[in-house]
Amino acid sequence: MRASVLYGPRDIRLDKCPDPALRRQSDAIVQVTAAAVCGSDLWRYRGVIEVADPRRMGHEFVGIVAEVGTEVCKVRPGDVVVAPFNASDGTCSRCIDGVPASCARIAYWGGQDEDGAPVDAGQGEYVRVPLADGTLVVVPGAPETAQIPDLLTLSDVMATGHHAAVCAGVDPGRTVAVVGDGAVGLCGILAARRLGAERIIVMSRHSGRQRLALQFGATDIVGERGVEGIQQVMDLLDGTGADSVLECVGTRESMEQAIGVARPGGGVGYVGIPAGGAELPIDQLFYNNIIIRGGPAAVRTYLPDLLRDVLAGEMAPGLVFDLHLPLSEVAAGYAAMDERRCVKALLRP
Amino acid sequence: MRASVLYGPRDIRLDKCPDPALRRQSDAIVQVTAAAVCGSDLWRYRGVIEVADPRRMGHEFVGIVAEVGTEVCKVRPGDVVVAPFNASDGTCSRCIDGVPASCARIAYWGGQDEDGAPVDAGQGEYVRVPLADGTLVVVPGAPETAQIPDLLTLSDVMATGHHAAVCAGVDPGRTVAVVGDGAVGLCGILAARRLGAERIIVMSRHSGRQRLALQFGATDIVGERGVEGIQQVMDLLDGTGADSVLECVGTRESMEQAIGVARPGGGVGYVGIPAGGAELPIDQLFYNNIIIRGGPAAVRTYLPDLLRDVLAGEMAPGLVFDLHLPLSEVAAGYAAMDERRCVKALLRP
Repeated sequence: MRASVLYGPRDIRLDKCPDPALRRQSDAIVQVTAAAVCGSDLWRYRGVIEVADPRRMGHEFVGIVAEVGTEVCKVRPGDVVVAPFNASDGTCSRCIDGVPASCARIAYWGGQDEDGAPVDAGQGEYVRVPLADGTLVVVPGAPETAQIPDLLTLSDVMATGHHAAVCAGVDPGRTVAVVGDGAVGLCGILAARRLGAERIIVMSRHSGRQRLALQFGATDIVGERGVEGIQQVMDLLDGTGADSVLECVGTRESMEQAIGVARPGGGVGYVGIPAGGAELPIDQLFYNNIIIRGGPAAVRTYLPDLLRDVLAGEMAPGLVFDLHLPLSEVAAGYAAMDERRCVKALLRP
Repeated sequence: MRASVLYGPRDIRLDKCPDPALRRQSDAIVQVTAAAVCGSDLWRYRGVIEVADPRRMGHEFVGIVAEVGTEVCKVRPGDVVVAPFNASDGTCSRCIDGVPASCARIAYWGGQDEDGAPVDAGQGEYVRVPLADGTLVVVPGAPETAQIPDLLTLSDVMATGHHAAVCAGVDPGRTVAVVGDGAVGLCGILAARRLGAERIIVMSRHSGRQRLALQFGATDIVGERGVEGIQQVMDLLDGTGADSVLECVGTRESMEQAIGVARPGGGVGYVGIPAGGAELPIDQLFYNNIIIRGGPAAVRTYLPDLLRDVLAGEMAPGLVFDLHLPLSEVAAGYAAMDERRCVKALLRP
């Protein structure tokens, strides 16, 4: 089969790789229908995270189950499935507590499973899925092709935007600020609207993304950053600050923005992987009783609810994919995201 | 009247001070029945926070209303009242949002009111209370003398322990770890038990405090600190970590302990005023989805509920006062707390 392999900074190729086979009877083999390029993939692509050996890439995919082990009972060959950005067993205390990203038997796409065996990544034709029962979520019926992008967002960005909103404590009728207009920030807007927020202010400087933000439910756009940006958000909220703030970037600047626009007693939900400079100013948080909550999303936990709303047509997060390419053009997809020529790329094997 | 005045490090005296009078018609004058010395008072007493001018001390008191302005309608002369550690109007958006410690018109005992006029502190015979309707909580009936210590804890330490428990997300049947065995940590145990925690592990090295901890509902004591202390707590919880952790100290070490014993997805409620070294390690928090929430307690918000339980005899937080002195011996009270010869001192004018 063919799959993307990153060899070094800005050197990603579509290689011929071994067809996966079941290793444990709890595995499944999934034929990938669509995969995505994630903003966090760019860290390795840009060399910010070093890639010592060639690495299979991609942690977001939907597909059709091709084969299952004898212990797999929740998915069957022919099922259309969504895969969260990590594999999890669904039975350990962490999964039961709703933290599948800390699963005791966690495996990452492109990494290793609990036996130390390599795990395929999403940007390829087939993937061996460890812990298939705990990991995969079946899409009931036969989804239309047009729904694939929506379903694909449930692998990561829509679930992550939802995590930001949940962590920020978004409640019906309350005010929300979203820092970041990437795919996750845009999905955070959708999530905040879905949870009933009345006012959703997004901090965005890109006109194309601003349009999508408004389409997703943002009520106000603030283009400024830094102190001016904070002041603008405060002015829009009568000087009070937002009840909930979604931090969807992960830099020191974005975290400062997020904390700066939260009202006393408000919540900051942060899902941008903390870049080195991100900091939490304890005095500012303490004296304002600002809640800080975030981390890798509980994708597997959220997936059934979000899937239901996508299938019911209540939200269309797939609009974040503004570049659709065949898998063979994976390098073009990475380049477009790297150069900010698109929000997010979808690849079809 | 007489009131305590701090002149410099370890120099606190009972001075003759002007009798307070109403300044605004929203003020009340309260005759103090009992006041407390707080661990945070020791910061100024020890010179950690510099005292440039002589400063009136004490932010925890209960008393009897002596006089009210014409705009005061919720308290009347003769009412027994509990005062939270700050005055608040009860009507601004922050008070309504349950963050009275961020009230738009906040005044601190021993500080200034919104007009810049000095506000009396609690360790004295009388106190002018700004924003009386928003600040004071009336104790129904005529409480017995024996209940005074319990009521006095509602000014700060019991409400603060409760805040730690609320912020840590204590839920019925779940596991709790408490870092700190001072008055707030001990009250945190009571609060956790009151909220239905099943297992309450307290980190404590002092035998007297351990006894009170067990009396308050702790199920386990861990005497070790640092890495060994974290390991002991983890061992008690099958390696999983606590669902909720109450950080009731405020140092770098105590925060490390607290975060170190929280399970993935668990909550740390922190109420110890952050000493310079306290830090929030963002990577550890992020990758474990640990929630960080805390700050000055919402005393005024919590007071009615906590008061009801105290009056019903369901908890006796007043046991944290292991030293009762007349106000004239205020210096002895500070010295005993400074030298760790008592947990907390109660002063009676």
